[in-house]
Amino acid sequence: MKKLSDQKIIDSWEKNARPWVAAVREGEIESRVLVTNKAIVDAVLGRTPRLVLDVGCGEGWLVRELAKAGVDSLGIDVVPDLIESAQHAGGGRFRLLSYEEVSMDILKEKFDLLVCNFSLIGNESVNRLFRLAPTFLHPGGSLIVQTIHPVAGCGDGKYEDGWREGSWAGFSDSFSDPAPWYFRTLETWKFLFSENGFRLDEIREPAHPRTQKPASVIFIGVLPVRS
Amino acid sequence: MKKLSDQKIIDSWEKNARPWVAAVREGEIESRVLVTNKAIVDAVLGRTPRLVLDVGCGEGWLVRELAKAGVDSLGIDVVPDLIESAQHAGGGRFRLLSYEEVSMDILKEKFDLLVCNFSLIGNESVNRLFRLAPTFLHPGGSLIVQTIHPVAGCGDGKYEDGWREGSWAGFSDSFSDPAPWYFRTLETWKFLFSENGFRLDEIREPAHPRTQKPASVIFIGVLPVRS
Repeated sequence: MKKLSDQKIIDSWEKNARPWVAAVREGEIESRVLVTNKAIVDAVLGRTPRLVLDVGCGEGWLVRELAKAGVDSLGIDVVPDLIESAQHAGGGRFRLLSYEEVSMDILKEKFDLLVCNFSLIGNESVNRLFRLAPTFLHPGGSLIVQTIHPVAGCGDGKYEDGWREGSWAGFSDSFSDPAPWYFRTLETWKFLFSENGFRLDEIREPAHPRTQKPASVIFIGVLPVRS
Repeated sequence: MKKLSDQKIIDSWEKNARPWVAAVREGEIESRVLVTNKAIVDAVLGRTPRLVLDVGCGEGWLVRELAKAGVDSLGIDVVPDLIESAQHAGGGRFRLLSYEEVSMDILKEKFDLLVCNFSLIGNESVNRLFRLAPTFLHPGGSLIVQTIHPVAGCGDGKYEDGWREGSWAGFSDSFSDPAPWYFRTLETWKFLFSENGFRLDEIREPAHPRTQKPASVIFIGVLPVRS
């Protein structure tokens, strides 16, 4: 297996699923607790969806949070331990499903909104998901992506699309073998939406109260009502 | 006069018009020569306009460059010395006109494309220009803005809209009293387009060959054919 690949991401998450569930549920990730959890919930609820597909749902916190607001969701994730934790906690439906296999044949239902919360970290897998996303949505539906902001995430490297080494800096010793991630420029994110039929309706940059820099970027794309 | 204001920008440019004309015409600004001049010309010509309005045209190089490609342009600028230099060099029409006074009553013609090349550096003046831009354009027309990229331009300050002190670092001793500029986040630029009826069609991030970071950001907005 290549060191930097979509498959390596899955491999890493399978190894780190258990400490991850603990980290999320015990509020150990400061930027999530202070900024990005609320930012993604607000972005989703702002679109008043009835049925949401949470792509890369992890241990399911967002599905549960949306359920509290009366919104039904299906969460999908490729990591068995994460889906098991999600199902155990409840609050919505969860299915073990990879980005490579998800399709309308398998889902068999359409959604008002797709949300990907820090879950688009691969290369080909993400391109495939963008291509299929319009088929999962009702006309006028939304695709919301929260991801690492290019401003904060580029670091000293070249500002260009490509694989980057992962890191668990700031996390406990329970984590190992960090997942690589595929850096995308702003230009490429914008292009992914446009190229796949989405009008980019909003860009949000939730600020971290301590650093005063964006903690993330949120893209909100909308499918035309008639296409 | 306030130290950080739209008026202060004009005041500074009036003082620095002569060295600026020399700096542009003698290719003294590396990022322009290496990256951003070609980037804005390509962006404009990619839209195949017949008639262009260059807002904040300075000494007129872009109008002349477009003329070489067979595109007629009108350049407007508020600084008398710059418009005089532009008219002297020719290649298109040039008018002394501030962002505060430009209107359809004065222009008396519609354009296929508006281009603002590093010329949207104020606050209220820029908001006003965005509000009026649709009235200057034929349906389906484009508004292209090249500006400082938030990634490169934010520096150590807060990532939020607001006035910043200017600097002539890297320029010759002929320059003095730098113009302040109004920093805008990506979120705000996107909002300015959407709020004023433009669909954001493209975001480009031309890379600087030495730093490998974006030398600028280019936003390409398009008016709906029917609104």
